[in-house]
Amino acid sequence: MGEDCPNAPPGDCRPSRVQGTHGTSAAKQEVSSHVRVLVLGGDGYLGWPTALHLSESGYEVAVVDNFLRRRYDEELGVQSLVPIEPLEVRTATWHALTGKRIESFVGDLCDGDFVTDVVRRFHPDAIVHYAEQRSAPYSMIDRAHAVHTQQNNVVGNLNVLYAIAEVDPSIHLVKLGTMGEYGTPNLDIEEGWLEVEHKGRTDRVLYPKRPGSFYHLSKVHDSHNIEFTCRVWGLRATDLNQGVVYGQQTPLTERDPKLATRFDYDGVFGTVLNRFVIQAVLGEPLTVYGSGGQTRGIIDIRDTVECIRLAVANPAEPGEFRVFNQLTEQMSVHEMAKAVADAFPGVVEVENVDNPRVEQDSHHYNVVFTGLQSLGLKPHLLSDTLITSLFPVVEQHRDRVDRAALAPTVRWRHPTNPLR
Amino acid sequence: MGEDCPNAPPGDCRPSRVQGTHGTSAAKQEVSSHVRVLVLGGDGYLGWPTALHLSESGYEVAVVDNFLRRRYDEELGVQSLVPIEPLEVRTATWHALTGKRIESFVGDLCDGDFVTDVVRRFHPDAIVHYAEQRSAPYSMIDRAHAVHTQQNNVVGNLNVLYAIAEVDPSIHLVKLGTMGEYGTPNLDIEEGWLEVEHKGRTDRVLYPKRPGSFYHLSKVHDSHNIEFTCRVWGLRATDLNQGVVYGQQTPLTERDPKLATRFDYDGVFGTVLNRFVIQAVLGEPLTVYGSGGQTRGIIDIRDTVECIRLAVANPAEPGEFRVFNQLTEQMSVHEMAKAVADAFPGVVEVENVDNPRVEQDSHHYNVVFTGLQSLGLKPHLLSDTLITSLFPVVEQHRDRVDRAALAPTVRWRHPTNPLR
Repeated sequence: MGEDCPNAPPGDCRPSRVQGTHGTSAAKQEVSSHVRVLVLGGDGYLGWPTALHLSESGYEVAVVDNFLRRRYDEELGVQSLVPIEPLEVRTATWHALTGKRIESFVGDLCDGDFVTDVVRRFHPDAIVHYAEQRSAPYSMIDRAHAVHTQQNNVVGNLNVLYAIAEVDPSIHLVKLGTMGEYGTPNLDIEEGWLEVEHKGRTDRVLYPKRPGSFYHLSKVHDSHNIEFTCRVWGLRATDLNQGVVYGQQTPLTERDPKLATRFDYDGVFGTVLNRFVIQAVLGEPLTVYGSGGQTRGIIDIRDTVECIRLAVANPAEPGEFRVFNQLTEQMSVHEMAKAVADAFPGVVEVENVDNPRVEQDSHHYNVVFTGLQSLGLKPHLLSDTLITSLFPVVEQHRDRVDRAALAPTVRWRHPTNPLR
Repeated sequence: MGEDCPNAPPGDCRPSRVQGTHGTSAAKQEVSSHVRVLVLGGDGYLGWPTALHLSESGYEVAVVDNFLRRRYDEELGVQSLVPIEPLEVRTATWHALTGKRIESFVGDLCDGDFVTDVVRRFHPDAIVHYAEQRSAPYSMIDRAHAVHTQQNNVVGNLNVLYAIAEVDPSIHLVKLGTMGEYGTPNLDIEEGWLEVEHKGRTDRVLYPKRPGSFYHLSKVHDSHNIEFTCRVWGLRATDLNQGVVYGQQTPLTERDPKLATRFDYDGVFGTVLNRFVIQAVLGEPLTVYGSGGQTRGIIDIRDTVECIRLAVANPAEPGEFRVFNQLTEQMSVHEMAKAVADAFPGVVEVENVDNPRVEQDSHHYNVVFTGLQSLGLKPHLLSDTLITSLFPVVEQHRDRVDRAALAPTVRWRHPTNPLR
């Protein structure tokens, strides 16, 4: 079962597991009456701003991470455009600024004993689970990366489900999924469930999925596993099918450069809107895959963290598998490129390149996403303001860019691809 | 990624992998014009009779196995009611009787290099994939067994998909799934796909699944992964959602006791109809879980092997993800118990016990299973003849039964259960 090296990028099997460091156990006693949230993957692009937002909102927050995301950078020979500090520096900075503590546990979710131990010791009211390999191209590099992605994500999530079941089934799981689980069906996309009528009978079923990569598939597997545990163990879970996130700053990460979160632009981990912004500033063409007719849900990073807070503040019922589509608007890739080009003060070229993925670039897309707004989300829509605010961030760090890393190198139709 | 021990029952990490023994490589040359079939899990309950049936039908057959199924017996302290010979004895017996050779490769599908190597060397036209952990109760024992089941099944299947994509995408994958993938929706169960109309639009989607154990979930994950590879790599696959198999003999396994396949009666690996037969002979009550109103698809072992032959003889198209529901009739558990009781010459008691599973015991169930019959399957329906033929088999080996092993010990609602 691979206990010696439960998780590492393929080929990278150095010992990584650290048994739950528990730097601030004293804090637990002081705030035991507070609502407690454990953020898995709390060192990542969204996990870290989420931890800050929850901490600022009055939750007692702890984070779990094994720094695998930082090791993917090493493997691919790339780095975040914006420099990021080690987790311990981040939490110390936050404490110095606010007096609030964020506990950290360093370890691997694929180590089930570690997960159970952390859940038992911190005993959260909610667990926010970001801690998965989250790049579609990374999962499509080759067999080793596909297997790593599914094993890491599915096994880690199973261990979280078991920890909840064994320690306290009332803990609310808030799990990050992706809109990519649905693919692009020729039907409106509902929030996780679908009322079906067939041959005169009706049922409410899990919305059928047609995901577009081994990564997206891993999230579909997770969703099925979670729904099952709600049914048989009475767990309560919220599955958030998130759109493409853009932006790099929240009001809290802006308070100090040491609180910055990562900003990825490379062809493997960089997401489309952020990559376009960086390409615009660098004077590179915005590379649109195929015709750019692919429509996707998108969401501002500031709305992501608020969505998580709302889900935590309004837990699912015991036994409920609740799904929200976490996006605030939908837009074609071509429209995203145009929005960036229009906002940029200089000249921007848009280049259509061969689509490395296998996906429809002309299709129906109409997503229901009323659940989170009914809980109170007030969306930040994509506007010149947000895009414009990203330009100086990129400008400041433009010397850190490796232009060669922008190109897509992973081709879906090939089972084996170069790392870069 | 656990390369040192890619696969073992939880807690059993002895080295098991043997690099592809290739006992009869000469045979490959002699029959190179024949259609070649690689049977993964060819040492198992159904894999072995399938290998014989395909060999008898004129295919050039090789089997792959790592004997994990035999090690589950050791772990659980149980054994097949009917003694089974080692694989090498089985294939030698078959050769002595018929002059036909069945090659064997010993190794673990979770070792991707091994899988690719076998596929490259044997270069089959079709791969029949039985090689998964196939017990629902086993997968529900505890966290380690759930993780083992999903990791073993999902990773093994991914490695098979990659081997096909890399060696020859025209190889037809015939994958064993289960009717348990569907659960018991309040809709008729179609063959894998469903035409859905929603808000005035229509699409053909994967039939929504609501599986009932971590094992059944692993098969759902496999189905999604396979469908994806048909879409992006153009693989051709037949996914067989099989009902509960009953029976122990086929005309070929009957030719010599050394060709016998296993016959499981224990609460973990024993399937319901076979268990009832054994309980009847032993004078034990037939233990029906709950009210016995659960309806399931069933199939005779002789039909299983013929279904595989038909799928191999009529391959899916390139890029096609074809699904058949592999059953020949549907029946409630109560009706199955009654059929066994009626066929048995002595007195039989039927006892309703607390259902250890979480499942509906009163529900709609109407399955479409026309696909395999349209290819030519002539079903053996459950009749006194079949059931009656099993009684002497059990009688002959009744001294091998451990009665304590009959009881269900794994309770779905408990995340942790005793091994027996």
